[in-house]
Amino acid sequence: MIHVGVDIGGTGIQTGVVDDNGKMLAETSIITRVDLSFPEQVGQIVQSVRDVLAKAGYATDDLQSVGVGIPGIADKKTGVIINCNNLGWRHAPFRQEFQKHLDMPVYLENDANVAALAESYFGVSAGTSSSVFITLGTGVGSGIIINGKVWTGYHGIGGELGHTILEIDGIPCTCGNDGCTERYCSATAIIWLARQYLQMHPDSLIMDMIGGNLTKINAKIVFDAAKELDPTAAKIVQFYIKCLARTIANVVNFFDPEVIVLGGGVSKAGDYLLDNIMRIYPDFVLFNELPMPEVKIAKLGPEAGIIGAAMLKE
Amino acid sequence: MIHVGVDIGGTGIQTGVVDDNGKMLAETSIITRVDLSFPEQVGQIVQSVRDVLAKAGYATDDLQSVGVGIPGIADKKTGVIINCNNLGWRHAPFRQEFQKHLDMPVYLENDANVAALAESYFGVSAGTSSSVFITLGTGVGSGIIINGKVWTGYHGIGGELGHTILEIDGIPCTCGNDGCTERYCSATAIIWLARQYLQMHPDSLIMDMIGGNLTKINAKIVFDAAKELDPTAAKIVQFYIKCLARTIANVVNFFDPEVIVLGGGVSKAGDYLLDNIMRIYPDFVLFNELPMPEVKIAKLGPEAGIIGAAMLKE
Repeated sequence: MIHVGVDIGGTGIQTGVVDDNGKMLAETSIITRVDLSFPEQVGQIVQSVRDVLAKAGYATDDLQSVGVGIPGIADKKTGVIINCNNLGWRHAPFRQEFQKHLDMPVYLENDANVAALAESYFGVSAGTSSSVFITLGTGVGSGIIINGKVWTGYHGIGGELGHTILEIDGIPCTCGNDGCTERYCSATAIIWLARQYLQMHPDSLIMDMIGGNLTKINAKIVFDAAKELDPTAAKIVQFYIKCLARTIANVVNFFDPEVIVLGGGVSKAGDYLLDNIMRIYPDFVLFNELPMPEVKIAKLGPEAGIIGAAMLKE
Repeated sequence: MIHVGVDIGGTGIQTGVVDDNGKMLAETSIITRVDLSFPEQVGQIVQSVRDVLAKAGYATDDLQSVGVGIPGIADKKTGVIINCNNLGWRHAPFRQEFQKHLDMPVYLENDANVAALAESYFGVSAGTSSSVFITLGTGVGSGIIINGKVWTGYHGIGGELGHTILEIDGIPCTCGNDGCTERYCSATAIIWLARQYLQMHPDSLIMDMIGGNLTKINAKIVFDAAKELDPTAAKIVQFYIKCLARTIANVVNFFDPEVIVLGGGVSKAGDYLLDNIMRIYPDFVLFNELPMPEVKIAKLGPEAGIIGAAMLKE
């Protein structure tokens, strides 16, 4: 059987046909249209599902389920999207609207959870009994997988590591609170920190790499400069790594999954990031004489959103 | 069938006979003797098991299992206590030593996890599918229960909420790290804070209540003074409650159990503590328009250690 996964983002919506082995058979994308009404938006998504099925050479009868990853929160029982800021959806009856066009099982899940699921099915956490996936991007998302299933808690509001507090009265967060982990461990945190540092150290290699244009800073540039031993970049990366190490240790001290997977923009720093994290994070773990979770870099890349969504079940 | 639970503490060891309904049939206690050798200590514990069985009118043949709660960490598969500072045990083969005297199933578990289990069997979290128990005592312990079983993670090092970091480079902790949750949410934290405040505000009601003897401060006195609207006590309690609210929100944002249970010395503040926590903690939860975990005060009291230990299984 085949499944369709839909990865809804703030700028684009990716749809793909995926087989039981996680193989992507066809893929398509449309631009997110926040100017459309909710029924029109859903109509667009249904059309993209039909298109990608045709592209893969399948009929809707071949389709077992449609899974949808959203940058927000949904009530999985009712299929209602509770809140999805990027698309302006609040209490939007997605499943009901979708099934007016295509009568088949529709599953909804947060996008970080969906990526976590994809990695646990076909990525670096495949075969593990528990894993925590952490996306280090614009924000910090996370997904907990226990025995092959997404754990979002009893009320469905868990898995939000990015908004656990890492510092009392710390850096103000977009969520309204202060000191959220997201403010210290996202790619945005590195960029924010780099901008502060560059004001004091305009001689940094980072400045050359961005041609003096501060809007061009990204996490990769800062890591690259640190690899070339630029002292300013080294300081930024050192602070960042210590914050991320604390966050990973928090997950281990509380939950201790078999594996921790890092995804998102910052994870592109690869082994350089991993080596530093694996060196430092055990210092923050209470029982650090015992074996502890290995930290790995996600391997599925941007397609994880589609593949994980396609794997969603009841 | 009956079970024996052993609750090992730094000053005393409580042993009890418990039936399948969590009813305590007999109880005994001995003083913790750190001056004895490990085999002698275990011999003492075996004797207390025999004594309490006799007291309840049972023979060892009636006994299904012996469960032991320790203030430390054990390898549940091998029955070896990895680390139990209060008793000076490191890599101590408890089960093996115990079974030399009494050949029956011996289960080991951390004491906070054991109390969490007791509450989930017979206390305020009975009948829930998931709960997190937090003890607010000398330190901060915690136990995660999923579907009636203790969750300590894949490597057995989880459930240590007290040593997750709540403040980057915050108050130094006994574990060697800085800013651990335990430094902000334990009874010790309240006492420490009260001592600082009383130096500046010796006119506080707290000072009257302790007769000027700073060693007499405890969490209850500070809460009692706050209830009587002493401004110094109110400030201490306000700071404490905000720290505990953040900690509870951290558990909810990440794990979202059905119920959160508070135990330990501070929980004796009862409804006064609960009302304040329930008022403030949702502010720190990301999806706080949705239902979220209720926070309850543990009801089993000091016997939870014995009862939970008695309920331990493979």
